[in-house]
Amino acid sequence: MDNAPTQGDRANLSARPAGSLADRAQRLGLDLSPEALSGIATVEAGLADHMERLNAEVAHIPPLAQHGPAIGAIVDAVKGRQQTPRDIALSALAVAREANRDLSCFTRFFEARALADAARVEARLARGEDPGPLAGVPYAVKDLFGVAGEPTTAGAQSRETAPPEADDCEAIRRLGDAGAILIGSTMMDEYAYGFVTVNSHYGTTKNPHALDRLAGGSSGGSAAAVAAGLVPFALGSDTNGSVRVPASLCGVFGLRPSHGDIPTEGVFPFVPSLDTVGAFARSAADLALVHAVLRDRAFVGSERALRIGWLDGYFTAPLDPSLRARLDTAITSIGESPPITLPEAGRARSAAFLLTAADGGRGHLGRLRQHRDQYDPSTRDRLLAGALLPDDRRADARRAARAFAVALDEAFDKVDLLVTLTTPSEAPAISDPRFSLGGEWVDARRELGLFTQPFGLSGVPAMSLPLPSPPGTLPIGLQLIGPRGRDDLVIEAALRLAQAGTVAPSTPPYYRTSLPC
Amino acid sequence: MDNAPTQGDRANLSARPAGSLADRAQRLGLDLSPEALSGIATVEAGLADHMERLNAEVAHIPPLAQHGPAIGAIVDAVKGRQQTPRDIALSALAVAREANRDLSCFTRFFEARALADAARVEARLARGEDPGPLAGVPYAVKDLFGVAGEPTTAGAQSRETAPPEADDCEAIRRLGDAGAILIGSTMMDEYAYGFVTVNSHYGTTKNPHALDRLAGGSSGGSAAAVAAGLVPFALGSDTNGSVRVPASLCGVFGLRPSHGDIPTEGVFPFVPSLDTVGAFARSAADLALVHAVLRDRAFVGSERALRIGWLDGYFTAPLDPSLRARLDTAITSIGESPPITLPEAGRARSAAFLLTAADGGRGHLGRLRQHRDQYDPSTRDRLLAGALLPDDRRADARRAARAFAVALDEAFDKVDLLVTLTTPSEAPAISDPRFSLGGEWVDARRELGLFTQPFGLSGVPAMSLPLPSPPGTLPIGLQLIGPRGRDDLVIEAALRLAQAGTVAPSTPPYYRTSLPC
Repeated sequence: MDNAPTQGDRANLSARPAGSLADRAQRLGLDLSPEALSGIATVEAGLADHMERLNAEVAHIPPLAQHGPAIGAIVDAVKGRQQTPRDIALSALAVAREANRDLSCFTRFFEARALADAARVEARLARGEDPGPLAGVPYAVKDLFGVAGEPTTAGAQSRETAPPEADDCEAIRRLGDAGAILIGSTMMDEYAYGFVTVNSHYGTTKNPHALDRLAGGSSGGSAAAVAAGLVPFALGSDTNGSVRVPASLCGVFGLRPSHGDIPTEGVFPFVPSLDTVGAFARSAADLALVHAVLRDRAFVGSERALRIGWLDGYFTAPLDPSLRARLDTAITSIGESPPITLPEAGRARSAAFLLTAADGGRGHLGRLRQHRDQYDPSTRDRLLAGALLPDDRRADARRAARAFAVALDEAFDKVDLLVTLTTPSEAPAISDPRFSLGGEWVDARRELGLFTQPFGLSGVPAMSLPLPSPPGTLPIGLQLIGPRGRDDLVIEAALRLAQAGTVAPSTPPYYRTSLPC
Repeated sequence: MDNAPTQGDRANLSARPAGSLADRAQRLGLDLSPEALSGIATVEAGLADHMERLNAEVAHIPPLAQHGPAIGAIVDAVKGRQQTPRDIALSALAVAREANRDLSCFTRFFEARALADAARVEARLARGEDPGPLAGVPYAVKDLFGVAGEPTTAGAQSRETAPPEADDCEAIRRLGDAGAILIGSTMMDEYAYGFVTVNSHYGTTKNPHALDRLAGGSSGGSAAAVAAGLVPFALGSDTNGSVRVPASLCGVFGLRPSHGDIPTEGVFPFVPSLDTVGAFARSAADLALVHAVLRDRAFVGSERALRIGWLDGYFTAPLDPSLRARLDTAITSIGESPPITLPEAGRARSAAFLLTAADGGRGHLGRLRQHRDQYDPSTRDRLLAGALLPDDRRADARRAARAFAVALDEAFDKVDLLVTLTTPSEAPAISDPRFSLGGEWVDARRELGLFTQPFGLSGVPAMSLPLPSPPGTLPIGLQLIGPRGRDDLVIEAALRLAQAGTVAPSTPPYYRTSLPC
């Protein structure tokens, strides 16, 4: 349970196990002449001062965060030498391969990579170093995170022949530095443009709570893998709700961070001004730790009372009575919670819709000019229609975004946090992907983001937390929204709501795990 | 002076001047069949609801910010029909081309592009619409911002043959939406790895305050162009100080925003976890407006008293007495300003140095494997040495960054903002790029970032403001640092310090302008 890097860190800093420059160059695929190596050695000598300075002054460095049960059990088993990272990786891979036949949540398994990650953790243990706060913890990433040596498909068949990535994306490097083990990539809507994880090439991810239901999307593979116990955490991306929507439908915790806070470098872009990297976990505490690693800053909790308001109007009017009742139970459980109206919400959602089409389309313009035929037709037409929107429509949308930001600022003058349901429906049927909204049957692909899109537009942090599921119901998430830059408040509130039982994930019927917890 | 979009906005929203789908497709280089167009038309019809909603509910939208003198004079001339955007663009281009022979601050001029931007503003005026808060204002970008139809060189000769960009980067699109006119790209160190704007292929940018002196870097071309009056604002990028250092040496205002707040999409990356997009201007007010446009959020000022502390120790010990005196004058002028010690600063700077080498090198790995010979040798060896650093060194650096973040948080518990000098020297001589530091002559390329690097590492916003230059001195900047996400506090304090005369840009001997102000 002790994450504080004190003795272990000092050991890390003293050991300099590097191999010769020539060896290191060869490992990176760099074929360097003796002259080139000599020039580099000179520069490296110049960097030595800086390395020494880091070595000489080991200051107090706060632990990133406490872990939760699933991650804690693995890290404890690894640190206590009850299980090797290699064995954990291999059994996680075996169970995931098996479960994937039923769930279709993975697109690829990275066995060699997983074993290399495990070996790195084992080497640290052998040297007596701290193996990191995620030592030996297997995880998966949505298939748009750059993985060294692999093409990034972004859910598009045509990208299977894209050149392999030269290096891992920044998020994966941070997780690797913390000791985590990457085992595979997960299913998504083509180019992340959807809320359902229905992919005309790769198939449809099944919901572990009911295999005939959608997992939600576009990060549905990651959400399903976590819900089913295959990995304790996984990464997704959230542009309009692509982490929060599948978290809601699969009954896990999923965090969209403040826009810009976690690097998206090396992540295949969709709408850069909205794209974020977010994680899924089965507990708020595990999610807090993963988020701290991704953000590379310690999570600092708070003791003060938090005022949580609930959003009415746009966010409650179209709800079916059964869902409204589940929301009301949560609001009652929170305690004193004032209703708040955000009159700009519908307009903000429309703005998010248009901005997504316009910027998503523009981002694909080069590919659309040359390889239009390789797109799924429905993705293609939406991207093309977006690319063809006049610039002034985009400017309209951005002005609406500014107006919504003002309305949100005013709300956050009254309360610390806001809640809504994350989605206006439980998981819809795969065979008929619609649901009832305000008395009408609507298209799930289009409408599942009704409550998430406005907050994606405004760049604020928002987490989906699983509400308790009465018998006969499927999961649905509570969306907890904080001011921009205050991910810490969202996480603190999530920890408290979990502690109080206001939210609680249920174990799905389809649950398989090889892991200690 | 009135930026409030009320009547103008409504007009914008009502007009739908788009041309047929087929016309728009052709303008974007998309050759679409009638069947394809029909599929897109169906999607567009589905988006119409959302467009209508934006149209129907025009809410109060706050103006982004008030402009300052240089931008204000142009916008007023354009709105008052005293000068056309086309004439402004053409004269700005003519003066910039002429001055560039002396200053070497531009790499390319985009005349056709500038005229197209101008035509867009003129079309809005002709339709009676609000032409935007930067209507007709010419500007330039460091040569690593993606410009539609142009290769992005990032200061590297080999990239002149890179494929042209499919579209503008997000920052340029936002400025274009606001009515600004892009006239050219500016000089930089190769791949932004330097503090001097000395480029073995493109040449060395001269400082408008003394043509035998460095402009600083790596965004030195943009800083020099603004200082010389060629454009009222320009864009740079700041990884370790590449906006703040040349702002200090050229005597202009330059802002490094909070990391992640302004999209870097379409900007050639250097060290993604440190890279930011920042702007230069000759007044704090003009800079505030440009920043609001780039950030796409209104700047909201504050009335409350701001406590500004000054950093001692690491930030004052090595200063020559004459520079120390200029800093002391500024501190006295600020009024009650307590000294603050950041014991972690030196370590943070070393961490920034190592992280830059390691991540910069890794980012170039693919190119270094294949096209090593096309790099400037000194850039190449630094990038290679960085790429070859063991992962554990990177992890050491990131832990040091976390420790520094804690020290900074503690400082910001005591004061709202911090100040230092931006650079430990005025502009060094081009013929002998060294300066005196703590009694020793040191290499300018290496040491000009001494005071800026720690804050780049921590992701906080920091602005360089020009201190008054007594006769016989060259410009030097005051660095104003705020908590992460509080760019508004930095800007508010800058406006007040400018108002109070604590900072004041001086007109350089080399000053040429065609513009109204």
